[in-house]
Amino acid sequence: MPRPTGFFGRTLRRVFAVAAPRRATTGEVDFVGAGPGGAELLTLGALRALEAADVVIHDRLVSAEVLALCPARVERISAGKKGFGPSVAQGDINEMITDRALRGARVVRLKSGDPTVFGRLDEEIDACDAAGVAWRIVPGITAASAGAAAIGQSLTRRARNSSVRMITGHDMAGFAEHDWRALARAGELAAIYMGTRSARFVQGRLMMHGAAPDTAVTLIENASRSDQRIIATRLADLADTVEGTVFSGPVLTFYGLCPRDAVAARMDTPGKKEAAS
Amino acid sequence: MPRPTGFFGRTLRRVFAVAAPRRATTGEVDFVGAGPGGAELLTLGALRALEAADVVIHDRLVSAEVLALCPARVERISAGKKGFGPSVAQGDINEMITDRALRGARVVRLKSGDPTVFGRLDEEIDACDAAGVAWRIVPGITAASAGAAAIGQSLTRRARNSSVRMITGHDMAGFAEHDWRALARAGELAAIYMGTRSARFVQGRLMMHGAAPDTAVTLIENASRSDQRIIATRLADLADTVEGTVFSGPVLTFYGLCPRDAVAARMDTPGKKEAAS
Repeated sequence: MPRPTGFFGRTLRRVFAVAAPRRATTGEVDFVGAGPGGAELLTLGALRALEAADVVIHDRLVSAEVLALCPARVERISAGKKGFGPSVAQGDINEMITDRALRGARVVRLKSGDPTVFGRLDEEIDACDAAGVAWRIVPGITAASAGAAAIGQSLTRRARNSSVRMITGHDMAGFAEHDWRALARAGELAAIYMGTRSARFVQGRLMMHGAAPDTAVTLIENASRSDQRIIATRLADLADTVEGTVFSGPVLTFYGLCPRDAVAARMDTPGKKEAAS
Repeated sequence: MPRPTGFFGRTLRRVFAVAAPRRATTGEVDFVGAGPGGAELLTLGALRALEAADVVIHDRLVSAEVLALCPARVERISAGKKGFGPSVAQGDINEMITDRALRGARVVRLKSGDPTVFGRLDEEIDACDAAGVAWRIVPGITAASAGAAAIGQSLTRRARNSSVRMITGHDMAGFAEHDWRALARAGELAAIYMGTRSARFVQGRLMMHGAAPDTAVTLIENASRSDQRIIATRLADLADTVEGTVFSGPVLTFYGLCPRDAVAARMDTPGKKEAAS
């Protein structure tokens, strides 16, 4: 690897002196968070892992912007996993990872967002452990953080909420059940991952348990990317809003949170009016 | 700013071409997440904000490693806020931020972790809006992500938990009340921020609501830093463990999560035995 030079080079040398990369005679696996898509939200550690990789096995949701940071010599493999769509079987992904590592490669398993949040990380770590392959986790910015930043809000706020949940709209069994009664109480705040397909289900469950119909709901598509889109609505209109919108990228749904006035004022979406509350 | 050169330089030019910095004739404020401490967990966007800053106003918990990335010409101001300790009044911090920005400075308000998670961000944004100062939020890695990575676990896991909560151990009113009955159920998982002072309170509340005494609890001090420490215990021993330990840095408490076996095997802490489950 060439020595970095120049101003940023000096900075990065200082950064990279702090924790030298592990060296192994056999391969090893870095489970790396790619963040929500904007290259600026990649961590320095993630960038370094990409620079040092022999092969990058990435989810379909990892953005082109982030993949473009892989050096040209690095082999890139797309390994599915996207909601309800077609996907590479988990067992095949596990084998791809361990097989490459056992043959001596530095493998980066690049996952959208933070690998520890709805990342199906455990199956892959278990496979590494079973194969005797060393691994480490490099955290990433999760969509909830990028979404909150996009709408100028906090996930927690004194005198409003001292707790926030990250929940998924669907799991292995279909739409995911949660503690709807608790979530339906005033002041609750949840970041719902993979929540568009389950929007009508979530809306129905929450309203059945007494959530106020005008509870703020905000959808953020492609958070942090150049094509980021913010749609502000309310619980009673959530399903209709989702069904009336064509989404092309990952969507985070905030239940109990609207864009801050200063952000709403700059928005040009159907939800603008509701947002300016 | 000198043009970056060399391999990393080229990479960063590509990154930095993606989203050019906003320019303003008056100053502006970037609310930037410093991450949990390790410089590798800083984002590229945060690094760029530091490089472009005139003044960095930082929390006491921001690590020396991250502060060392500020160019020498950047003025650094420490602005308290640390649990129960002495601190700069929030109003004074607000004024410091807006005053500098109104005088034309590029201000970075650097907050430990992610500014949107228990970061008291809203008061400062409100102050900017009131003063007519432009701002944006640059998200950071929150302690829960770094803590999960450190112990080799996921915050969510198929067939275990499809939801995770981030809660605080104390709020303005003292120890924070939460939905203890729901949290006491088997399989619940929570990341507790600022949880050491309230450890006995949290333990008591959870056990009163029927949480199993041997529920795994893991404390991670200085997550991602060179002096990171992992202490594995169980709910019934939480308060005694905390009271018998001297902490020198920020601590994240995981309720319902123990270190993965492969991590526990490398640990050398009093909690090692409990962790290897």
